[in-house]
Formats: sequence, structure tokens, C-alpha cells
Amino acid sequence: MSMVCTDINEGLVQASEVPTSPVAAPRVPILAVIGVGLIGGSFCAALRQAKFAARIVGIGRNPAALQEAVNLGLIDEVKSIGEAGAEADLIMLATPVGAMGKVLAELRPHLKASAVVTDAGSSKSDVVAVARAELGESVARFVPGHPIAGSEQSGPQAASAELYRGRDVILTPLPENSSGAVELVRDAWLACGARVHTMAADEHDAVLASVSHLPHLLAFAFMTQLGRTQNVQQRLGLAGSGFRDFTRIAASSPEMWRDILRANRAAILRELSDYQEVLNECAQLLAEDDSQRLEEMLRQAAQLRRDWNLS
Amino acid sequence: MSMVCTDINEGLVQASEVPTSPVAAPRVPILAVIGVGLIGGSFCAALRQAKFAARIVGIGRNPAALQEAVNLGLIDEVKSIGEAGAEADLIMLATPVGAMGKVLAELRPHLKASAVVTDAGSSKSDVVAVARAELGESVARFVPGHPIAGSEQSGPQAASAELYRGRDVILTPLPENSSGAVELVRDAWLACGARVHTMAADEHDAVLASVSHLPHLLAFAFMTQLGRTQNVQQRLGLAGSGFRDFTRIAASSPEMWRDILRANRAAILRELSDYQEVLNECAQLLAEDDSQRLEEMLRQAAQLRRDWNLS
Repeated sequence: MSMVCTDINEGLVQASEVPTSPVAAPRVPILAVIGVGLIGGSFCAALRQAKFAARIVGIGRNPAALQEAVNLGLIDEVKSIGEAGAEADLIMLATPVGAMGKVLAELRPHLKASAVVTDAGSSKSDVVAVARAELGESVARFVPGHPIAGSEQSGPQAASAELYRGRDVILTPLPENSSGAVELVRDAWLACGARVHTMAADEHDAVLASVSHLPHLLAFAFMTQLGRTQNVQQRLGLAGSGFRDFTRIAASSPEMWRDILRANRAAILRELSDYQEVLNECAQLLAEDDSQRLEEMLRQAAQLRRDWNLS
Repeated sequence: MSMVCTDINEGLVQASEVPTSPVAAPRVPILAVIGVGLIGGSFCAALRQAKFAARIVGIGRNPAALQEAVNLGLIDEVKSIGEAGAEADLIMLATPVGAMGKVLAELRPHLKASAVVTDAGSSKSDVVAVARAELGESVARFVPGHPIAGSEQSGPQAASAELYRGRDVILTPLPENSSGAVELVRDAWLACGARVHTMAADEHDAVLASVSHLPHLLAFAFMTQLGRTQNVQQRLGLAGSGFRDFTRIAASSPEMWRDILRANRAAILRELSDYQEVLNECAQLLAEDDSQRLEEMLRQAAQLRRDWNLS
């Protein structure tokens, strides 16, 4: 039974609507999280704080990271995919997107009939395609999701129960999903303090390509260009706070971003092409020293940014 | 007489070397600051705190901003350029770079024989050219400078005595400058808590085009591209902390950045062209789905950024 909203189409539910009485029974007996880095580890930390699961098990490739997750109290114990799949009620895939196919294939034969699986991948159309291919009919239990939160930090030591508080999480439910499965995933994110939205996978991917994936690619490309110069250390020595913030996301996990960029490359290439056109216009305005049009462009850009605030 | 170092070529002097005894006499009787926004106002605030000048006068185009600077205690009184030029011992030009020619032309007939003039413009070759054209022989008193500090905020209310603490200031002295003139400007920045470097104007411009001006242009261009889309508000509604930091500098003053981009456009166009080449490579790697080369590029970029820290 759901603790909160049953209408998955209401679009936005405030975390404050979730009852958080400390005496309530856990929502699920066993939560399994595959990948206990920043994203998975923070999901563990937040749901532990919310007493959402009676027990949290961790799965991963890296024994040292898993041990650290135990030491940090993020998970109760380490299991194999098969063991976790056989007992878990809710399974979160917090691996790089590129690894999800393999993980789902391993998971499928073990899944309990009542288990619900979700993910935290930054692209959704490709994850849905992979889930359909690997899970077959069991895809009805897979509720795709994406928390719009993160950091250039990675690993379990970067995990925080507060990472998702006040942040947006997008679910892209499948027609096959039961309302109960979607509710369970929604409830988990609400318990993390997030705001939960639903939208179509392709719509999600187009929007994220624009406001997340392209900026990451541009920042990585900027560091690449800088790294190819002869006097890179002199340049870095005089870089200031503008550089610091503009390039922060270029320190993000290369493995994770390789997968995200590949997974959503069609949408990203469209955005990149539009961006390159704007850069060509900028180059022309500078070459022609067109002060008036240059200022007008900067003014509109600055106004759009000033009117935006991260809620 | 200088309070500190007399060797302008030592490159880097720590602020901690400056004697800051509160009983010391002010270094100059009258400091005049033309343009009392974030940059000029913070210079006033820091030098007032350091008791560097007996009196600080403000000059500007905007009477409301000047009054606010008086109310905030940044300046003691408002003067015209002629009045300030006739009495000031040190004059800071903190106007947009594009306005400096006009200001210097107005200032020239009034300058005291002992006055030293400096600026805080983000480009230096063009400021030097303008100063030579407008000041004639008096250019010997003009010591070009650039504090690498700022914020997307502007106006006197954004000014802070702490803005320059621990930050780098680059002076690009002219062959005509007396050592006393350079020392005075250096002492002022040291009193603000900054680290002072010297280098050639064209070297400064090439480095700043790379680590400051290009990132600003790229961020402005990104907001421009976003602003042209049909569903811009939906996109902005799902933008997160990566977007926030990447685009922060796109909220900077359009007027100031129009001038900086124009003033240093030759160097910026070179960097932009190199950057566009990297973007073309990125587009190709994505189109070809070349996972290995993509990851290698991201890895090197991330490593370069992780190895850098704003000191």
C-alpha cells in the first residue's frame, strides 16, 4: 500500500506531504542498491534516514567501495546480484548506464514476483530499450527514473542523505508498469526529500540533453582545448572563480559521462549542432566588431540566466 | 616611499608581507575611484579598511550609484572628473574598458604632476593603446592593472572589502613608468590582500582570453542557444546544479563583457577557433559512437580539472 499519492499523473508531489512518523513500519523489507557510489550511496543514506527499508543490501563490482559503504553505514551487507535479486523488494540500479544491460540480464532469472526495479540513469530511452531487451515480460516491474542531482565527486564517501532533498526526480513509467510499482518508486524518492515528476522518456532525453548533457560536454571540451596548449600551467595559474564554476562539471566521472553521452547522443548532437551555430554567430560578431548586436545577444542571455533560480 | 618591495620583477609578493600597523599614516592623501560598482567599490572598501588613503572620492555617470556608494561608506564624497583629477594622488579607473578613452581624455588636463593612474580593465593591450593615445606623455603615470576577481553581481551594493583577498592581480607596467608609480599601485593591491604579478600586456591578454574571456563567451552562447528553443521554460525547470554553475558567469554585466570581448577579440577569436575544432571532434566521436576515444578525452579533461584548485 502506498503511503501517499496514487495518481501518478499529478506531476509534482511535495516531499512535505509524506508522513514521516518514526514509528511507521518500513515501506519495504529489503532494498537492494546496485552501485554504491555517489548516486546509489546517497539513495541508501536518505532511505536509511527515512527508515524506508528494514534492511539495505549493496551490490557492486568494486569490493573496496562496497566495504567502504558498509563502514559508512550506507548498506547493511554485501550480496551478489543473484542473492539480492532473490530477496529484494525494491532494487535500484545506480550503475553507469552502459552497464545496465548486463546487470538486468543477470538479475532477471532471480527476481521475486513482487520485486520492483528502478534505475537512476541520466538518459531514459536507451535504458528502456535495454530493459525491454533484457527483462522480457518482467519489464512490467521496471520503473525508469532519473534524479537530477549529482556532484563532480564520486564514490561512497561522497554519498549524502541530503543529496536529493528539494531536487527533481523524473520518472518515465512504462505502459506495462502497475500503478503499485510506480507508487513504490515514487514513495522512495519522496522519502529522499525529492520532488517527483513524470514524463515520456524521449521528452526527458531531449530536455536533459539541453540543460545537463550539453553543458557537461562543453565543459569537458573546454578542458580538452586548454590541455592542448603549450602554457597550460601558466593559464591555470591565473584562472579565477568564473573558470572554477564553469569547469566544475568537467571533473565529473569520465566513465559515467562516456555512457551518458553515448546513450543520449542523438539528442545531444542536435543540441550541439544548434550551439555550434551560435558560436559561429559569436565569432562573426567579434570579427566584424558589431558592438550593438553583440551587446544585445549578451543582454538577452544574461537576462534569461538572471531570471532563473534553482528552486 | 614604498612600504614594501621595490623590485617589481620579483613576480609575486604575499599580502602578509605588508605591514598593517593601524597607527601608520595613510599611504596617499586622496584616492579617486572612477566607477564605483563591484570592482571600483570593492577597491574603495578594501583600501578604506586598510586605511590606505586619508580620503576617498568617487566619480561616475550614475548619480544614484554614487549616492549609494556614499551611503555604504565606500567613498567620502562625489566629485567631477576635473575636480578629482586636480587633487587625487592615486586614481583608479574602474569603468568598462570601452569608456576608458573618454575618461582619460577628460582627466589629462587636470592631473597633478605627482598623480598615478591605474585601471582594473580585463584586457590590457587595448587599454595601453588607448592610454598612450589619450594621455600623451602623461602615460608615464599610467600603470595598467587587472584584478582577477569578480562576480556575476554588479553595482556598489555588491562591493566587498574581501573581494580581492587572496586573489591575483596582474600589473602590466609600461617602460615609461617610474618605479615609484608601479610601487604605489602594487602597494594598493597588496593592501587589498591580493597577490601581485607583473607580465607583458599581450601575454596577459592571451592567458585571460583562454581562462576567462572564452568561458564567459561560451556561457553567454549557451544561454543564447537555450533561449531560442520553443520549450525554454520546461528546460529551465529541470536544470540542476551543474547548469547553475556552468552558466553563472552568463549572468555577468552585458555592457562590461561587450567591452571585454571587443577589446580582446583577436586573442579570443584564436581560442574560440581552437575550441570549435575540439567541438567538431566531439561531434565526430559521438556520431561514430567511438567509446574508447570519447572516454580517453573525458578522462584527460577531468584529470586536468581535478588537478587544479583555486588557491
